[in-house]
Amino acid sequence: MQNKLLNTIDSPKELRLLSQEKLPLLAKDLRDFIINIVATKEGHLGASLGVIELTIALHYVFDTPKDLLVWDVGHQAYGHKILTGRRDTFDTNRQIGGLSGFPNRLESDFDTFGVGHSSTSISAALGMAIASKLKGDFDTQHIAVIGDASIASGMAFEGLNHAGVTNANLLVILNDNAIGIDPSVGALKQYLTNVKKGTEKQDNIFEALNFDYSGPIDGHDLPLLITELKRLKNTKGPKFLHVITTKGKGLRQAEENQVTYHAPGKFNKETGELNPKSNIKQPPKYQDVFGHTIVELAKQNKKIIGITPAMPTGSSLKYMMEQIPDRAFDVGIAEQHAVTFAAGLATQGMIAFCNIYSTFLQRAYDQIIHDVALQNLPVIFCLDRAGLVGEDGATHHGVFDLAYLRCIPNLIIAAPRNEIELRNIMYTAQLGLKHPIAIRYPRGRGENLNWQQPFSKLEIGKGECLKQGTKTAILSIGNMYKNVVEALEFLEEASAFSHYDLRFIKPLDETMLHEVFKTHDTVVTIEDGTLLGGFGSAIAEFKTKYNYPNKLILKGIPDHFIEHGTVLELQKTINLDSKNLSLFLKKMTD
Amino acid sequence: MQNKLLNTIDSPKELRLLSQEKLPLLAKDLRDFIINIVATKEGHLGASLGVIELTIALHYVFDTPKDLLVWDVGHQAYGHKILTGRRDTFDTNRQIGGLSGFPNRLESDFDTFGVGHSSTSISAALGMAIASKLKGDFDTQHIAVIGDASIASGMAFEGLNHAGVTNANLLVILNDNAIGIDPSVGALKQYLTNVKKGTEKQDNIFEALNFDYSGPIDGHDLPLLITELKRLKNTKGPKFLHVITTKGKGLRQAEENQVTYHAPGKFNKETGELNPKSNIKQPPKYQDVFGHTIVELAKQNKKIIGITPAMPTGSSLKYMMEQIPDRAFDVGIAEQHAVTFAAGLATQGMIAFCNIYSTFLQRAYDQIIHDVALQNLPVIFCLDRAGLVGEDGATHHGVFDLAYLRCIPNLIIAAPRNEIELRNIMYTAQLGLKHPIAIRYPRGRGENLNWQQPFSKLEIGKGECLKQGTKTAILSIGNMYKNVVEALEFLEEASAFSHYDLRFIKPLDETMLHEVFKTHDTVVTIEDGTLLGGFGSAIAEFKTKYNYPNKLILKGIPDHFIEHGTVLELQKTINLDSKNLSLFLKKMTD
Repeated sequence: MQNKLLNTIDSPKELRLLSQEKLPLLAKDLRDFIINIVATKEGHLGASLGVIELTIALHYVFDTPKDLLVWDVGHQAYGHKILTGRRDTFDTNRQIGGLSGFPNRLESDFDTFGVGHSSTSISAALGMAIASKLKGDFDTQHIAVIGDASIASGMAFEGLNHAGVTNANLLVILNDNAIGIDPSVGALKQYLTNVKKGTEKQDNIFEALNFDYSGPIDGHDLPLLITELKRLKNTKGPKFLHVITTKGKGLRQAEENQVTYHAPGKFNKETGELNPKSNIKQPPKYQDVFGHTIVELAKQNKKIIGITPAMPTGSSLKYMMEQIPDRAFDVGIAEQHAVTFAAGLATQGMIAFCNIYSTFLQRAYDQIIHDVALQNLPVIFCLDRAGLVGEDGATHHGVFDLAYLRCIPNLIIAAPRNEIELRNIMYTAQLGLKHPIAIRYPRGRGENLNWQQPFSKLEIGKGECLKQGTKTAILSIGNMYKNVVEALEFLEEASAFSHYDLRFIKPLDETMLHEVFKTHDTVVTIEDGTLLGGFGSAIAEFKTKYNYPNKLILKGIPDHFIEHGTVLELQKTINLDSKNLSLFLKKMTD
Repeated sequence: MQNKLLNTIDSPKELRLLSQEKLPLLAKDLRDFIINIVATKEGHLGASLGVIELTIALHYVFDTPKDLLVWDVGHQAYGHKILTGRRDTFDTNRQIGGLSGFPNRLESDFDTFGVGHSSTSISAALGMAIASKLKGDFDTQHIAVIGDASIASGMAFEGLNHAGVTNANLLVILNDNAIGIDPSVGALKQYLTNVKKGTEKQDNIFEALNFDYSGPIDGHDLPLLITELKRLKNTKGPKFLHVITTKGKGLRQAEENQVTYHAPGKFNKETGELNPKSNIKQPPKYQDVFGHTIVELAKQNKKIIGITPAMPTGSSLKYMMEQIPDRAFDVGIAEQHAVTFAAGLATQGMIAFCNIYSTFLQRAYDQIIHDVALQNLPVIFCLDRAGLVGEDGATHHGVFDLAYLRCIPNLIIAAPRNEIELRNIMYTAQLGLKHPIAIRYPRGRGENLNWQQPFSKLEIGKGECLKQGTKTAILSIGNMYKNVVEALEFLEEASAFSHYDLRFIKPLDETMLHEVFKTHDTVVTIEDGTLLGGFGSAIAEFKTKYNYPNKLILKGIPDHFIEHGTVLELQKTINLDSKNLSLFLKKMTD
């Protein structure tokens, strides 16, 4: 029978009753279990396979959840979830109403801190450790497990720098597999490699920061891990354990192709082979439109630079990194640096395309204001994964960008509605703008097989009328135009509706808006960003400024966090899908 | 004659013609010049006095502005400004229309990068260095001068981590004076102290990050500085020079009281004595209301924690640090860590008051969303220096907070209108809220001598009618209520105006707003935040949501960056001062 041993483990309590000899068998069960489910249900694979032994050892040695364990990022926490009471629900992972793909405080007491973005674990665990100390509890241990890509982010350094001058019971475990989603980069990574090779002394950076350093040790050696963790459990103050693991451990293909098997989609659980790609030609992913277009442009324009903070694959900047390596930079998980680095380049006349997922640009908000917009440097931000992103859920939706960017002076904000418009706004931006620009586009695929059209220049701040109607004007931005088109398709009364694509959230096309408000009774805005402060809010400001009497209805992301599920499922929960939109529009005509 | 030598230096060109023996005399002139002007005109003092020799040596050795020099933060750049063509205008420093208190690209070619917030210099200079390399220029040097407090911030680490794997001509100069505005903290600071004492090897952190490290050297020894900088000028790749300086060097009181003399206000230029404090009792600074109130509350409530990222004096958390040191934390220039550390504390039931200047909270935007609000942890953010801050200017105004915070679900946003309300909302928050809260208050003094009133609990989301009128309702938030009161005082037709203090930007007091819109023709909103996406925008959304026909007029910070000057001068430029407001209201009644 499969997973015989794992099936007896409903919580770490049962795990701790096992003899140490049984643990390798449990590790095997746990790997098989994860592989079996992720093979069909999809999700993150390699990271969790890499920390199976560490996960078992941590729950075996420490008294979780009393001892507080924080997983950085959290896509490596599948084993943790399965061992802490969620084995039988794990097949709902990342599905709507099911388990979250990341640790989540609402889901389990063992998930002590919600994660998703990187490099938060040290700060959070230190907060917990200081709280214990103040309560007079000097025994509880507080553990942050953090990868080598994540620890190179500035925030992690800030946490280490503070922790080193406390005597808090904090154990930082560096899960060093030399890879984040893409291979790790930077000087610290080189340094860690040298420590591993023994060419760098162990009297090292972490000791310099006052941590009791031990390691590096083999993170797949259960007895060694357990011995070391037991020692550390009884050591007070800030401690640092350097553990070497292999991402994807236990599945040959996942070990050999670590980038692909980070989140491989469906695959054959016996052989590990990826499901064959469909022969049907599909429209491109937006990220690939960006990735191929920047190469095309950079070949013509020697001033173009590409920048990604640790997402060469996810952003598709990898194409430029392969073809024009001296002008394409992966700066690591360092959004703050990425933005100000781009600003520095711009001062010297370079045209920097800084590609950051919408949700991660939140990490560089001050730099956009203070280093780019205030100096009016024409950096080109490409915000991938804007809007709802689907299964990654609440931590990853890019729904705040319009609200947090709109208040920044000098900044242009564009939302191309399809691949061709994305190409054209990228083309336009590199011709030379007088201001910085943020170009936001969604996760997933576009709609045009024939998307590599010749470039044409867009006029900044100019919207487009897509359909002329009689009574109600629908204003959409970006990809949401598709939902409007589909909603009108179902509708008998479609002739009552005009449809405008504003294209630019800033500057607004006021000429077009005056026409809209003068020739329609009602105006409806549709966006995949927050209603508070977003695009619709900009239209409400316009209506206020010019004192238009029209009825205005705002549709977008309501004022609560949106969970995980497919984009369509999530749109349905907030009535933004084309069907609900159609019903809503129909009601307006009754 | 005073400053005889300095008066011959109109640019670094003349400086470079001087024999090396003359430089100490120039240093003396430069110190005297700065002391003389800051003594009467006010401004930042200690930081610039500490780098006089370094400033002279840099411009003497390097070919500025061709060689690109970036000052981190920039309040130490007075000497730089004076030597680069701004000697004769330096007495306009920080005044409206005058020189900026920080380097500014619009002001001089020698100001290669605008600064104000810390820790941006390495990233910016690296961008410049990479640009030079791509242009085939392998000779230009790119220099970031950064203090020991700033280099401990995560963003600086990100820059170092990237720079270390480039071969860019980047020289990072660590200006190590063991103090930022307040004394530096953290493990890195301890480490640097040990390096200086010789108890830590020089095979150090910066070498581990691939920098060619030299130092520590005496930063007041001109010949030594010049020799070392000449060597480094001809060294390719990333270099790191560790320079030891004394903040306030050359003015005894400034050396002895480094915190006070960071920005001492007016003082006697001969003796260095501070101008005697007026005997007239003044209302308290808002920061002191915070600082004393948290002590008062924390003495009663053992769960209260105070956190400041490197602003114990500026935030007045120093009072708690002195009286309840185990529960008050200066975490260094580490806003990201500060927020997630607070979140970690909150998971364990602690009540964390995280005090961050509004402008610096931009550094922790993702952490507010992802670590606090998404998990609905009841952290209490106190945003000092919200609204226009005056002479620090464009880099420091806290005018974006309402717009960038308003879109975040779960977050309460309060703006107390005076000291008593600030105390009461702090009191209310620590009683236990179900959500995080941001409390924003301005720089400067309040209005009540008798501000230490007994606490009373405020109702969350409840506004207050301050004056009942007939036609027009004025809705103000926070401190701006004062301008409204003053504007109405001047006005014969005051009876036409109602005045409401909303108190909470989120949640809005919808009950009160319905009453307002039903009983007035016109509604005017007044805020010291951005018009785009801010408080007025929230009222426009309300009006839209309920389809009210009232005329609505929004007054606030327009969509451009506001420069430096007194708060009143700046308010006048945008018609937000009480006089202009009064004229505007008068016109409405015509």
